[in-house]
Amino acid sequence: MNLTVDRANLKEWDKIIMGIDPGTNVMGYGILGVKGRKPAMIAMGVIELHRTDSHYLRLRHIFERVLGLVESFLPDEMAIEAPFFGKNVQSMLKLGRAQGVAMAAALSRDIPITEYEPRKIKQAITGSGAASKEQVREMLRRQLAIASENMLPQLDATDALGAALCHFYESNRPAASLKSCKSWKEFVAKNPDKIKGL
Amino acid sequence: MNLTVDRANLKEWDKIIMGIDPGTNVMGYGILGVKGRKPAMIAMGVIELHRTDSHYLRLRHIFERVLGLVESFLPDEMAIEAPFFGKNVQSMLKLGRAQGVAMAAALSRDIPITEYEPRKIKQAITGSGAASKEQVREMLRRQLAIASENMLPQLDATDALGAALCHFYESNRPAASLKSCKSWKEFVAKNPDKIKGL
Repeated sequence: MNLTVDRANLKEWDKIIMGIDPGTNVMGYGILGVKGRKPAMIAMGVIELHRTDSHYLRLRHIFERVLGLVESFLPDEMAIEAPFFGKNVQSMLKLGRAQGVAMAAALSRDIPITEYEPRKIKQAITGSGAASKEQVREMLRRQLAIASENMLPQLDATDALGAALCHFYESNRPAASLKSCKSWKEFVAKNPDKIKGL
Repeated sequence: MNLTVDRANLKEWDKIIMGIDPGTNVMGYGILGVKGRKPAMIAMGVIELHRTDSHYLRLRHIFERVLGLVESFLPDEMAIEAPFFGKNVQSMLKLGRAQGVAMAAALSRDIPITEYEPRKIKQAITGSGAASKEQVREMLRRQLAIASENMLPQLDATDALGAALCHFYESNRPAASLKSCKSWKEFVAKNPDKIKGL
């Protein structure tokens, strides 16, 4: 299942960000185009992995599909949703492999990767790290001005698009710790390089 | 650090097996050539990863080096040493990524992968799953008739060569459960397809 908006001329964008939400059963992706300071959705979708029980075929499928996306959309940067804590060592090993294979596809094409924790993405999109995936989807839809019929219902796809938009916001923030400052005094203390003439 | 024996004509081998011991600091590899029923060491070495602190540069380095080995030695099969249990979820996620990236290099060239637990490799090489890495190295040296001066001291390299030799033994065993049978009765019960005229 995937959806590509008719913005075929990739050269028109100043920057293209690929968001990936790698899992061992389903992998979501979202392609974001940036023109000036304005982001827009180019494509989003999910790659179903549960059709085969073979762990290796799944990994191979991830590699080939991510490489295919890289060659189709020529992204400049990749943002990956990466939880740092999981249920157990077994599931984390499998998740690590899925992430590694997706990363290899990007690394093989010299695409820089940035990873974001799920909480961080939710915070960046909705303002709350505890937001539900449905809230993230709805806020994404509004911020990117996507018509409801053009929004895929799959939460893995919207999560991946969220990772890409989070990366866009992070790359464009004037100061990394701006949001968490409660006063000018704190801002000055945290961002001495942003203050002139001190 | 690597060592390649002068057996340059890769076409002379019936089969080439690449053994990999992926880690996040050092990755070992061993290349085994098989002629008839006889295995021999073609190359072994380690890829140092701790020269860079960047997690992504390390992953990229693994991908590029494993792909380079694949293109140099044209292995038919890949055997990977893969522990299934680790200290904590964080280290398992990192190990999974390193494994995933190494696997992607093989999968991108259609090379089938088989993984072996460290215990299994030790068992296959030394007869004991509790053998030390030094014992594995010494038994490998004898079984492959490698002169002492041609044996790398790095245990990551010998572990990887052990994975390749373990894979050779496993592929050539007449029956998978042969070793663990204590009587003919048990053998017959476990291997009905191996007994004619019953």
